[in-house]
Amino acid sequence: MLIVGESLNGTIPKVGEAIKAKDAEFVRKLALDQVEAGAQMLDVNAGVAGASEAEDLAWLVGLVQETVSVPLLIDSADPAALEAALAIHKGRPMINSISAEKHKLDSVLPLVASHDCSVVALCLGDEGIPQTPEARLKVARITVERAQAAGVKLEDIYVDPLTLGMCTSDKAAKITLETLRLIRQELPGVRIMCIASNVSFGMPNRRLLNRTFAAMAVAAAMGVEAVMVDVRDKAMMSSLMAADALAGRDPYCKAYFKAFRAGKLVT
Amino acid sequence: MLIVGESLNGTIPKVGEAIKAKDAEFVRKLALDQVEAGAQMLDVNAGVAGASEAEDLAWLVGLVQETVSVPLLIDSADPAALEAALAIHKGRPMINSISAEKHKLDSVLPLVASHDCSVVALCLGDEGIPQTPEARLKVARITVERAQAAGVKLEDIYVDPLTLGMCTSDKAAKITLETLRLIRQELPGVRIMCIASNVSFGMPNRRLLNRTFAAMAVAAAMGVEAVMVDVRDKAMMSSLMAADALAGRDPYCKAYFKAFRAGKLVT
Repeated sequence: MLIVGESLNGTIPKVGEAIKAKDAEFVRKLALDQVEAGAQMLDVNAGVAGASEAEDLAWLVGLVQETVSVPLLIDSADPAALEAALAIHKGRPMINSISAEKHKLDSVLPLVASHDCSVVALCLGDEGIPQTPEARLKVARITVERAQAAGVKLEDIYVDPLTLGMCTSDKAAKITLETLRLIRQELPGVRIMCIASNVSFGMPNRRLLNRTFAAMAVAAAMGVEAVMVDVRDKAMMSSLMAADALAGRDPYCKAYFKAFRAGKLVT
Repeated sequence: MLIVGESLNGTIPKVGEAIKAKDAEFVRKLALDQVEAGAQMLDVNAGVAGASEAEDLAWLVGLVQETVSVPLLIDSADPAALEAALAIHKGRPMINSISAEKHKLDSVLPLVASHDCSVVALCLGDEGIPQTPEARLKVARITVERAQAAGVKLEDIYVDPLTLGMCTSDKAAKITLETLRLIRQELPGVRIMCIASNVSFGMPNRRLLNRTFAAMAVAAAMGVEAVMVDVRDKAMMSSLMAADALAGRDPYCKAYFKAFRAGKLVT
């Protein structure tokens, strides 16, 4: 399971301020802390209101790659910012994201196809986020087919089923879990990315909901290939290790035992 | 979700000693503690080597029912002990358990059919615990059909997929999760009982594995009707509340919010 650290995101107020102020020390520490906590990839998002996203994202990518050696998940809605970041990224990044929206297929998919990278494919179309698992599968299928037609390999596509907050609907997580199950059944070969933090938006005890949801997502898809979480949350990381082992994805529970011996698991 | 407390079990050394010694105070406290922690039913098992199980189980049932008002899950492999316990149980108990084994169908099923009770149906046949989810479904189907033929209502049958310890195989939990999914699909109307503690037998950080597995079981079956757990484990109870809400089984997350306000959820 590829574990992506979610925290270098300009939409988080403190991080946004640091990006605006070009506070290199803050960014370096957040990158180091996440890698030390077990992140194998870091999301970088420079979406700060009233700033130059292309310039900021390129700065962020350069600075983070000077500091840590993991690849980055380059996260922007702006194709120009993605292009600027891709131009300076060393190694093989992932792009966040394409979808079945026309403007994404027109503007971001060509970038993905022309660079050596993987990509997150959101279950999202021109009509927004579909309400049913079947409709989410449908937009995922369109996106995957278009990406493959553009030359992107199936194993480089990480489908994100999307998760709305439980504060918007008490069926929000259920729809995502059922979407995960459908994607696993109906789109063999594609990879799955589970983003755990949205589900708890506006709810009490967010960390409890996030880690419980992450384990449930692993069960629904019988293993996910990637997760994006707050890697500094030890209880979350423990749940991921346990869930991966329980889903039969950790041969001889080797990684689980190793984490236990290293004192990385909560009781 | 019906929450059953697992702890009044004579196979646990301390509890076994208390039953042997007819230590009423110990038993009363364990019953009260579990109900206070949220148990809606208590498993009672008097399986102590070298003792009279029928006599001990009847004593246990009487004592626990004097102390708390929840119904009991009467747990014995001995039909005579079950019969003695059923004779004195007040209210509507559950019997643990029947299976597709010939001697269970011959000796325990008639007891179930002739009493006003519900029953746990183990995925177990005369050849032992089947190795594959499909084979477990097969023995579950046989048991359910035989129970229905004997007059037991479908909604009174709680199928337990059985869970071996991860120490026996790194696919042990996966087989159970896939069995849960199959039972939900193929045996509509039947209820599901998830017993969470076996999975971690012989493994480090048992509570972490147990609560993660319980959440995964809820995801695999899209909600379970009953769980048997250590109800005194606050992290487990929190995971169950979160998982039930995330599976869309807690309308408006009312129970989750209530537990939060009562300080019953870990962060």
